[in-house]
Amino acid sequence: MLIVKKFGGSSVADKERIFNVARRCIEDYKKGNDVVVVLSAMGKTTDHLIEMAADINPNASKREMDMLLATGEQTSVALMAMAMQSLDVPCVSLNAWQVAMHTSSKYGNARFKRIDSERIHNELDARKIVIVTGFQGINKYENITTLGRGGSDTTAVALAAALHADACEIYTDVEGVYTADPRIVPNAKKLKEITYDEMLELATLGAKVLHNRSVEMAKKYGVPLVVRSSLTDAEGTWVKEVVSMESMLVTGVALDKNAARIALIGLKNEPGIAFKIFALLAKKNINVDVILQSIGRDNTKDISFTVTRDDAKEAVEILKENQTALTADRIEMDDTVVKVSVVGAGMQTNAGVAAGMFEALYNANVNIRMIATSEIRVTVLINEADADRAMRAVHDHFLDN
Amino acid sequence: MLIVKKFGGSSVADKERIFNVARRCIEDYKKGNDVVVVLSAMGKTTDHLIEMAADINPNASKREMDMLLATGEQTSVALMAMAMQSLDVPCVSLNAWQVAMHTSSKYGNARFKRIDSERIHNELDARKIVIVTGFQGINKYENITTLGRGGSDTTAVALAAALHADACEIYTDVEGVYTADPRIVPNAKKLKEITYDEMLELATLGAKVLHNRSVEMAKKYGVPLVVRSSLTDAEGTWVKEVVSMESMLVTGVALDKNAARIALIGLKNEPGIAFKIFALLAKKNINVDVILQSIGRDNTKDISFTVTRDDAKEAVEILKENQTALTADRIEMDDTVVKVSVVGAGMQTNAGVAAGMFEALYNANVNIRMIATSEIRVTVLINEADADRAMRAVHDHFLDN
Repeated sequence: MLIVKKFGGSSVADKERIFNVARRCIEDYKKGNDVVVVLSAMGKTTDHLIEMAADINPNASKREMDMLLATGEQTSVALMAMAMQSLDVPCVSLNAWQVAMHTSSKYGNARFKRIDSERIHNELDARKIVIVTGFQGINKYENITTLGRGGSDTTAVALAAALHADACEIYTDVEGVYTADPRIVPNAKKLKEITYDEMLELATLGAKVLHNRSVEMAKKYGVPLVVRSSLTDAEGTWVKEVVSMESMLVTGVALDKNAARIALIGLKNEPGIAFKIFALLAKKNINVDVILQSIGRDNTKDISFTVTRDDAKEAVEILKENQTALTADRIEMDDTVVKVSVVGAGMQTNAGVAAGMFEALYNANVNIRMIATSEIRVTVLINEADADRAMRAVHDHFLDN
Repeated sequence: MLIVKKFGGSSVADKERIFNVARRCIEDYKKGNDVVVVLSAMGKTTDHLIEMAADINPNASKREMDMLLATGEQTSVALMAMAMQSLDVPCVSLNAWQVAMHTSSKYGNARFKRIDSERIHNELDARKIVIVTGFQGINKYENITTLGRGGSDTTAVALAAALHADACEIYTDVEGVYTADPRIVPNAKKLKEITYDEMLELATLGAKVLHNRSVEMAKKYGVPLVVRSSLTDAEGTWVKEVVSMESMLVTGVALDKNAARIALIGLKNEPGIAFKIFALLAKKNINVDVILQSIGRDNTKDISFTVTRDDAKEAVEILKENQTALTADRIEMDDTVVKVSVVGAGMQTNAGVAAGMFEALYNANVNIRMIATSEIRVTVLINEADADRAMRAVHDHFLDN
């Protein structure tokens, strides 16, 4: 078996944890497997580098930021190789250039384009554990790029795809993917398996276990993913194309706190107004989520939608600058809202999920402010104060059996 | 003009110093010059990385050490680029792979084999200041190497040679090369110029201004070197092939404290004994310097020689293990000795230098224990307690005019 194992920054934050990871990898290696390890920068290293840069130049070019940040993972992989060497296991550390991992040119948020597998295969053939820097790549200008948030997960999946790995194991500080956040819903259960599509909806909606780019790539190349704990030997959750027949109607309930609702009240009921609003926001790269249009009094209409809280202030500013052109009487913003979603591949053929969710929320006395659905998801916007109660009510309704 | 400027770790140890270096480089750039900057790792970074590695594995492979250490210079060059960007000057940082700087395979102590100049020329043509990592290279296996002690000086000279630079400026914390260490000899004078050969003797003998590998390379490729202060605008010292006619008979006086004397007493007066001694030491990679053989009593002989203090203990151990085979009555070691040398291209045609040195030392009541000479150097081994007095006496004799 060829196994790609990815460990995040907290799993390699100090000597003890580095050796813990080394031993886990060596266990698989000694069983005769080919082992490729992908590491993030140690602990708070990346934050520390960002601080150093900000002190020198808060507007440093992203090209130079990537040059700086890439040192973090290179430090991790070198130290991991030293740890494995001290345990008498042949190994080699490689950075993105040595692999080589080719990406698009966009610094700070690059995408993989092509991964050369020759060097890694050669090292594996020499029976070495191969330790690769996560999060980074090189572009066509032979400059270093980084992948942005969740980049090391993506590195692991991309390597697994390029190497035709038998499994890609993502190690985290939880034991797998749960039906809901156990801190909010105490009776949440760990899932044995989940489909790529379900995982994508959960990742996008704030489940935070896997970055959605890595899940998208795993789906595209059919990489069998498993989310496991770096601290225990528990089985973890498999993410794959099709899960077994007994899969539940609803797989999980997700909470996304990074939401704000913006409303434009009293717009003239003319064609093109909605287009203008969203064109203004698109120009500023602000993503709009759940959208609701309703008819107001006196032949006016109201348009409300959600954005992330990070974007809310800028969105309101740009809209207020254009308030007259948009014919809005008032522009309101509320950042005390959250999104609760139920996700499940099973609901594609079952219309009852939305109804069941609304019923559960009604019984829990939770007011629904907006609704959005996809084929395998129902999302409601509610007040933040109701979040935990809503999560438990919805989870109990679908998943407590 | 194309100028290569090299700054050591203390010159980029903090934000203020980074900006100081940035401004010096920009000054040259704004005069219309092409500027290439070579940087070491910041302050104590390399020491800190070595400590981290030693904590994980005191016997880590040199390949992985180089992978780790190379992050130090990469951090420096990225931060320097950010500093220059904040001063609105176009620039780019490059590591050894990006340049690319090809070296031999020997990790921890690699030698340059070939430097590609295309990337740097392209960046210079785009009117950017190019900031290059010192101390590191890549080998034919596409692994990262480091150059060992004084590596960043060598990087600067190698780049200057490859780019046919008009000058290679080495910035240090002194204003240039002095006729002696000013902390010991208060009336030491800064030299305006010095030949490569003189500088080589001084570097080898512990003047510590330039690493001798960099001087050797500068001599080989005729790179005009200048040693300058990173703190003042003083002129510095030029190192070149031929210096002006008025050059002095003696250029400088150097003190090397890293010396220990080992003596083997009462050896049988047989052929091959000396060979055995030095073969044993050579096998352990211990360099032997000044050698003296003298006839003892009863048809025995004594052999004494110097090694660096770092090697002294190991040298004595290996000799004691073989004491019987070497026929030595006693093996003695003295690490309270130092070497004082006078250096000057002028002495090639003047036999009086050695005599003048001995006279000066005699007048200062300094006992000479061993003597060695080259074409442009006279070295004496003396007791450490006499070092400062000897330095001043020799300096005054030749250079105080």
